[in-house]
Amino acid sequence: MVRERTVRLLYGSRVEAVYVLGTQLWTDVYSAAPAGAKTFSLKHSEGVKVEVVRDGEAEEVVTNGKQRWALSPSTTLRLSMAQASTEASSDKVTVSYYEEEGSAPIDQAGLFLTAIEISLDVDADRDGEVEKNNPKKASWTWGPDGQGAILLVNCDRDTPWLPTEDCNDEKVYSKEDLKDMSQMILRTKGPDRLPAGYEIVLYISMSDSDKVGVFYVENPFFGQRYIHILGRQKLFHVVKYTGGSAELLFFVEGLRFPDESFSGLVSIHVSLLEYMAEGIPLTPIFTDTVTFRIAPWIMTPNILPPVTVFVCCMKDNYLFLKEVKNLVEKTNCELKVCFQYMNRGDRWIQDEIEFGYIEAPHKGFPVVLDSPRDGNLKDFPIKQLLGPDFGYVTREPLFEKVTSLDSFGNLEVSPPVTVNGKAYPLGRILIGSSFPLSGGRRMTKVVRDFLQAQQVQAPVELYSDWLTVGHVDEFMTFVPIPGKKEFRLLMASLGGMSGKRITINKILSNESLSQENQYFQRCLDWNRDILKKELALTERDIIDLPALFKMDEDRQARAFFPNMVNMIVLDKELGIPKPFGPQVEEECCLETHVRSLLEPLGLACTFIDDISAYHKFLGEVHCGTNVRRKPFTFKWWHMVP
Amino acid sequence: MVRERTVRLLYGSRVEAVYVLGTQLWTDVYSAAPAGAKTFSLKHSEGVKVEVVRDGEAEEVVTNGKQRWALSPSTTLRLSMAQASTEASSDKVTVSYYEEEGSAPIDQAGLFLTAIEISLDVDADRDGEVEKNNPKKASWTWGPDGQGAILLVNCDRDTPWLPTEDCNDEKVYSKEDLKDMSQMILRTKGPDRLPAGYEIVLYISMSDSDKVGVFYVENPFFGQRYIHILGRQKLFHVVKYTGGSAELLFFVEGLRFPDESFSGLVSIHVSLLEYMAEGIPLTPIFTDTVTFRIAPWIMTPNILPPVTVFVCCMKDNYLFLKEVKNLVEKTNCELKVCFQYMNRGDRWIQDEIEFGYIEAPHKGFPVVLDSPRDGNLKDFPIKQLLGPDFGYVTREPLFEKVTSLDSFGNLEVSPPVTVNGKAYPLGRILIGSSFPLSGGRRMTKVVRDFLQAQQVQAPVELYSDWLTVGHVDEFMTFVPIPGKKEFRLLMASLGGMSGKRITINKILSNESLSQENQYFQRCLDWNRDILKKELALTERDIIDLPALFKMDEDRQARAFFPNMVNMIVLDKELGIPKPFGPQVEEECCLETHVRSLLEPLGLACTFIDDISAYHKFLGEVHCGTNVRRKPFTFKWWHMVP
Repeated sequence: MVRERTVRLLYGSRVEAVYVLGTQLWTDVYSAAPAGAKTFSLKHSEGVKVEVVRDGEAEEVVTNGKQRWALSPSTTLRLSMAQASTEASSDKVTVSYYEEEGSAPIDQAGLFLTAIEISLDVDADRDGEVEKNNPKKASWTWGPDGQGAILLVNCDRDTPWLPTEDCNDEKVYSKEDLKDMSQMILRTKGPDRLPAGYEIVLYISMSDSDKVGVFYVENPFFGQRYIHILGRQKLFHVVKYTGGSAELLFFVEGLRFPDESFSGLVSIHVSLLEYMAEGIPLTPIFTDTVTFRIAPWIMTPNILPPVTVFVCCMKDNYLFLKEVKNLVEKTNCELKVCFQYMNRGDRWIQDEIEFGYIEAPHKGFPVVLDSPRDGNLKDFPIKQLLGPDFGYVTREPLFEKVTSLDSFGNLEVSPPVTVNGKAYPLGRILIGSSFPLSGGRRMTKVVRDFLQAQQVQAPVELYSDWLTVGHVDEFMTFVPIPGKKEFRLLMASLGGMSGKRITINKILSNESLSQENQYFQRCLDWNRDILKKELALTERDIIDLPALFKMDEDRQARAFFPNMVNMIVLDKELGIPKPFGPQVEEECCLETHVRSLLEPLGLACTFIDDISAYHKFLGEVHCGTNVRRKPFTFKWWHMVP
Repeated sequence: MVRERTVRLLYGSRVEAVYVLGTQLWTDVYSAAPAGAKTFSLKHSEGVKVEVVRDGEAEEVVTNGKQRWALSPSTTLRLSMAQASTEASSDKVTVSYYEEEGSAPIDQAGLFLTAIEISLDVDADRDGEVEKNNPKKASWTWGPDGQGAILLVNCDRDTPWLPTEDCNDEKVYSKEDLKDMSQMILRTKGPDRLPAGYEIVLYISMSDSDKVGVFYVENPFFGQRYIHILGRQKLFHVVKYTGGSAELLFFVEGLRFPDESFSGLVSIHVSLLEYMAEGIPLTPIFTDTVTFRIAPWIMTPNILPPVTVFVCCMKDNYLFLKEVKNLVEKTNCELKVCFQYMNRGDRWIQDEIEFGYIEAPHKGFPVVLDSPRDGNLKDFPIKQLLGPDFGYVTREPLFEKVTSLDSFGNLEVSPPVTVNGKAYPLGRILIGSSFPLSGGRRMTKVVRDFLQAQQVQAPVELYSDWLTVGHVDEFMTFVPIPGKKEFRLLMASLGGMSGKRITINKILSNESLSQENQYFQRCLDWNRDILKKELALTERDIIDLPALFKMDEDRQARAFFPNMVNMIVLDKELGIPKPFGPQVEEECCLETHVRSLLEPLGLACTFIDDISAYHKFLGEVHCGTNVRRKPFTFKWWHMVP
């Protein structure tokens, strides 16, 4: 934004200029002088502050007009005004030129000024209210003292009969839709009419036109009409200048989430354009800018309170469904069943979607991230989740082949952590990938880039490709410690059973199975070591849950018995795959062992039989369920990524 | 890089592990315990440091083996070693398990250790020498205290008969070529042989494989062979472990300049892989990483001393050539003439290329940026500039139409400036664009992105589209003030002539011409205001040079008389288009005026007649010449972008 402007005087003529409050006008008396002039004097009306600047030294001018200054290229005038004019050209500055001392002026140059106020305003201080002309509105900074406005991607659907999200068209059908948008106010103040030919224009850059949309409400009181003025195919909009003190209210929506090629920042400008003559282009003489950041998509870790549990109803999972229902009834969240007409035989609701949310000071709502997996559940998120104040977003690769690692059982998020002094108050995203060098499967780039671009939950890549299915939820999960801010990382572990003094290798006569599991343990330990480093965990924060894997023909691992770490976490209630381990005193020694590890922390273990409906298809409880959770109370803009 | 690793013990057996100096091994005595065990004791050889960690509290173990510890899940061992082993498995740790006090151990678990040293080394402290295991070698930071190695794009051509730059193939033809590369040393120390099955592998990520190349020199003393081991199509390379103290020397070249989708950072890793059994994948147990930043392409402002002046020899510019030659003879730089067989009638050598350079602590050389303009001069940079220690780079749009704004008369760079406390010690790049809103011409995105991505000379967009040709060198240039660190910005200006008390509007009977020039002055002032803001200049830093423009059929401006600001700057010698202004006392009043402005600063003005050979084709002296200058003495990595 250029806040200083040069205006040219010319001896013998009067020059018209519109002055915008908060700026400074520079004018060069020297260039405008008539031949022979050696000194000059100044007169100006009260509304104008005039300074003579000589070699950088400013001296304010009193208006008596007696004082003389020598003409010199290094002597310029600096003009400013404090209040908007009530009529056009009502203020003036007159420069009189003299040949030598005492004589009458040989000529004069006049500048006629009209002062107006223009300010494009947003909620740059993030209190939910649009303040007036915030000095930091044009930039954007993170942190508790950060400044800069925030925008939501209007990715919900307030109008039921629309096919897709609200941001996909240039229309507004209801007041509700406006509530998802951020307010922007154009404030102007000045005389009833501007001098001839001036125009006020709102505009955006070409590169922002697919990222932001602006609406204006016509007759806000009766018979409202919402007019799309900026966005796709609309780069600028001429605003009518009404005179006096005016406030025009606009509504701004985000169209796209931050992504690899998009930082999330968008700017809207207003310019005052000056007309000179027929056939000569208008020139901008003042520009004001506001900058928004589009709110990132945020994931919710297990430690956040559950709101809704989702599970699919299948031909063969009646008992499982019942056990999940019983578990959910112990908590204060609701169960939603996805029926067969919708799941069409696809039971892996964990893999099809990930629940998250977006938030701005004025509003927030849940947003589901749809996986590129696209099994038979693929219509579920749009048909049954997308709705009023429930958003939708997806990323699908153009060319890359989608693998099992693209399912969202392979996308989790840690609780808040601090690593070597760097805080992650919203936790860190965890995705599974391949060993370096192995050249194996990896989550598709468009999804990794999307997650990275959200910035607030810096992703960590683990190594899950050693598993047949290849999901991080096959070897790790997080549980809260009720009543405390703490949490524990639960990891599948070969060693996890020695608590009962039964070391699997010893049970196993099968030499190759034992060797395979030593290898799998290395893979688990590799992940353990990364997690300790990237989340600053110690051994004390990690609890080993007994597990055993067997190797398939591709030398990848699948659970040998129900994989307990693949559990559902609802506050203190844990729904754990029933392991069907060896009975010791009529108790499954595995269940007893796991209880002994978790119940002392205040957690309640419910073991759910998932063998026939999930385990035999290479999944467990977690894979067959999904949980929408409350958002963080922490505001994402208070962090520094 | 994971520096802590978990190793599993197992009672009744001995476990082999290779330990890498600088890491820590964690082992869980509890999981490895036999049934019934309640306590354990420890023995270890001198080379090993063993700590018992209980609930986060570490206690070092003395080796007498008398002491007992209670078995508990929260009790683990932390192992480290200080020196590489001279033979494999020469160090050991033995855990003895007991049922109750005083009794003999019921079982033992043994760990046999081989300590080796592995370090991948580069010149991370930027002194031109590869130091040993710099702790900051894996990351990269800017500034005088910054760390991290630097890479040159090997964009010169050391072998004359090759068609293109050295980085375009995977071969090395001469020792000279190696000098353009950065050295990397793999240091290993340990027993003659590693335990069976271990492998050391150098590797890069897929995404870096088109950005970096690594060579290895076979028998460096006689009959050298240079082997390409990493880069395009080569993601990893197995290194032979030789035992004892070994240093393997590698040479690393950059293949691509930083760009929109490439930050400039590349990493090379070395991993130690562990073998377990037939048919079971190798697992990495240690990884060391080095990170390089590819040196940015840097432009050289007018204030830097000239080295070579380039000019085209045409059928019609003999006198111009002669005057340029005379001017160059006053300086201590050389003149290079581009002859007709090469320029093929294209005289605009300023527009076809921009000279710059790249620099690393060990080496630097000039690099020419070839414009997408591609006039008849288009073969000149590759045929006559590219060569030993003279690099070449270009950017051409895939789809966008190339306009006159893509010529490099529209690409300049300011002297070093500091703006609101932010230093630009290498100046800021200046390119011409359109007015906001006008939707006019703009420099092609690939070139703008390239300039931006270099980071060290943050570009500023000016507005040059109001001119027919549309180049920033039509209205501005910078001149040094001899003997001082200062500089001045020279700007074409309508007001610039009033110094001689002749105001052009007054000379001009032609009303429309005068009105047009008021508009052009607005355009000039708009740029003046941006330059003042983005370069933190005051009116005192700006000198107005008289100019006059006329409007063409597209309402764009062309110089009415030779445009003096379009000059060549060689230290204090200025070659200025001869304006042929009104004669006052047998002197051109314009020349006299310009002398009066510049000569007091210690500058020497030579007015060169370019009317017939350049001006009438819409260009002047600057457009018809180009200058290669000395690089900055300031090192780019000392700045913070």
